[in-house]
Amino acid sequence: MRAPDFSDVQAAAARLRGHAHRTPVLRSASADARCGAELHFKCENFQRMGAFKFRGAYNAIAQLAPAQLAPAQRSPGVVAFSSGNHAQAIALAAQLLSVQSTLVMPSDAPPAKLEATRGYGGEVVTYDRYADDREAIARRLAAERGLTLIPPYDHPDVIAGQGTAAMELFEDTGPLDVLLVCLGGGGLLSGCLLAAAAMSPGCEVYGVEPEAGDDARQSLRAGRIVTIPVPQTIADGAMTTRLGEYTFPIIRDGVRDVLTVSDDELVAAMRFFAERMKMVVEPTGCLAAAAAFAHAPQWRGRRVGVIVSGGNVDLAAYARWIGGL
Amino acid sequence: MRAPDFSDVQAAAARLRGHAHRTPVLRSASADARCGAELHFKCENFQRMGAFKFRGAYNAIAQLAPAQLAPAQRSPGVVAFSSGNHAQAIALAAQLLSVQSTLVMPSDAPPAKLEATRGYGGEVVTYDRYADDREAIARRLAAERGLTLIPPYDHPDVIAGQGTAAMELFEDTGPLDVLLVCLGGGGLLSGCLLAAAAMSPGCEVYGVEPEAGDDARQSLRAGRIVTIPVPQTIADGAMTTRLGEYTFPIIRDGVRDVLTVSDDELVAAMRFFAERMKMVVEPTGCLAAAAAFAHAPQWRGRRVGVIVSGGNVDLAAYARWIGGL
Repeated sequence: MRAPDFSDVQAAAARLRGHAHRTPVLRSASADARCGAELHFKCENFQRMGAFKFRGAYNAIAQLAPAQLAPAQRSPGVVAFSSGNHAQAIALAAQLLSVQSTLVMPSDAPPAKLEATRGYGGEVVTYDRYADDREAIARRLAAERGLTLIPPYDHPDVIAGQGTAAMELFEDTGPLDVLLVCLGGGGLLSGCLLAAAAMSPGCEVYGVEPEAGDDARQSLRAGRIVTIPVPQTIADGAMTTRLGEYTFPIIRDGVRDVLTVSDDELVAAMRFFAERMKMVVEPTGCLAAAAAFAHAPQWRGRRVGVIVSGGNVDLAAYARWIGGL
Repeated sequence: MRAPDFSDVQAAAARLRGHAHRTPVLRSASADARCGAELHFKCENFQRMGAFKFRGAYNAIAQLAPAQLAPAQRSPGVVAFSSGNHAQAIALAAQLLSVQSTLVMPSDAPPAKLEATRGYGGEVVTYDRYADDREAIARRLAAERGLTLIPPYDHPDVIAGQGTAAMELFEDTGPLDVLLVCLGGGGLLSGCLLAAAAMSPGCEVYGVEPEAGDDARQSLRAGRIVTIPVPQTIADGAMTTRLGEYTFPIIRDGVRDVLTVSDDELVAAMRFFAERMKMVVEPTGCLAAAAAFAHAPQWRGRRVGVIVSGGNVDLAAYARWIGGL
C-alpha cells in the first residue's frame, strides 16, 4: 500500500461525514493565562466511543464495506488486536458498517473494556498476555477465517482517518503557530502532520510521548525506528514499543520535535481538565496539554492547537487521580 | 422594572457576543438509546466560570458599566448573594467590565467556589446559611456602600441573560419537542421559556428540581409562590426556598410541568456524564438529564433539549461520587 497523503485525509473526511461526531474546539481563559498563549483544544474525548480512534477505524472498514464491493470481494469481517480504544473503535465502526468484527484482547483486560467491546457487537477472543503472541493470534484468525487485519496505527487508511481530527481543528481555527499531538504508535500524529502541512504550512507540529516510553524521540535522534521494552506509564494508549513503517517516515520528515512528560504531569493536567474545563480526559489524552503547560515559555504569544485524544478511563482509577486519593 | 420578554433575550445575546462562550450542543448515542429519544445536551458546564450564570451576570452588569454612564451615575460596584455560581459569575463579569464586586456567600459553600470567586477579584463576605438572612446582609451592604444589588435570579436582566442559553440551543437544533431545564429560583427556566415561546412554540418545557426542594412544583399546584425551608440536597445550586416575583409568573404561564429527581438519581446521572459523555457536571447540572432518564417513556421518539447548567463541583466530593467511594 502507498503512503497516505492529504488527499487521503480529505477522502476520509468525506467518508466520516455524518458518522463521526464533529467534536468541539474549546477555549479556556485559565489555560491561556497559564501559558501566555492562545490555546485551542480539539476535544476528541467527545468523539464516538470516546476517542479519535473511531475516525481511523471507520475510514479503514468503510473501504471494505459490502455495499461497495462485488459479492466475491466482500470481506467476511475484520480482526484487530488491542487492549483498549482501538478494539472498541473497530467493534463500533464494524457494527455501523454491518461488518463482523473479531477482537483479540487480553483475558485480564478490565471487564468494562471487554463488555464495551462486546456491547458494540464485537466477538472477543481472549489470550494470555504472559504466554501468547496477540499479533500471531490475530494473523492466524485472519488467515483461517479470511478476515482483514486492521492494525492500530500502522495502516494508511487508519492514518488518513486520524488526520481528520486536525483537519477539523484547522477548519475551525484557521492556521495555527503550533500543534501538540500525543504520540504512541504515531497514527494520530502522522495524520495530523498531513493535515497541518496542507492547511497550516507554517505550523510547528510536536509529538508528545510519556517520559518512560520515549521511543519516538530516540528514533528521531537515531534516524531509524528504535524499539524499546513495554514502557510503564499511566498513559496506557502510549505503551507502544516502536513507531510503524508508515508512521515513522511521515513523523521524521514533518515533526518539529518530540517532547516528553511525566506521569505526575499527566495527573496534574487531568485535574486541570476536570477542575477548569469540566472534561474527563484519559491519561494518554492529557499528553499534549501536559506538554503545553510544561513548555509554556516556548508558546508565549502564539496560537496553539492541543489535541485531546480521548476520555476512556476506568472511573474508579480516575476518581483516585483527580480526588488525590 | 418591567417583566422581561424575548426582545430582552435578543438584546442580551448581542451584549454577550464575544464575551460569553458559545457552548457546544453534544449528542450521545447511549443517552439516545437509553431514552429511545433524540437528546441534545446544551453544555453550559463549558461556559466561562463553569456555568450559565455568567450570561445573566454579564448582561446585568454590562448595563451598569461605567463607560456607558455619566460619572455621577456610575456604580461604585455591585453586590450579590449566592450559594456559589452566581457569585463567581458576578465576580468574573464585574472584573471583565471593570466594576468592583462584593459577594455574600454561605460559609459552607464548596471551597472551590469560594476560592474561584476570590480568584476573579471579588470581595467575599460569608454568612451562616441556616441562621443569617443573606438578602438582608446584601441589602445592608448595598445601602452602606452605594452598591447595586444583583439578585441571583429574580431580576429581568438576569432572566434575559440566562435565556440566551436556550436561544443558542434552538439556533443549533431548530425547534424541539421537549426542553428540560433545572430549577432553583427559576432564572434559567424563565429565560429559557421566553426563548422557547418565540423560537420553538410547540416545545413542552419542563422544570426539574430536587425531590427535597419541590417548592416550584408546590407553587405551580397552589397557584402562588410557596416558601419551603432550605432543602437538603446535593444540588447546591437548587437549595432555594422560593421562586421570585419575576420568575413565578413566567414559569406559571409557560411551563408544562415541574418534575423532581432524587439525589441518588443525580449521582447516577453524574456518573453517566463522566463515563459516557466525558463531562464533569455538578449535581445541580445533572437535574435535567436525571429527569430525562427517569421519565424516559414520556420522551420516546421525540427531540429533547437538555440544559446541562454547570460543572463547578469540589473535586474531592466529585471523586467520591463518581468513584463510588
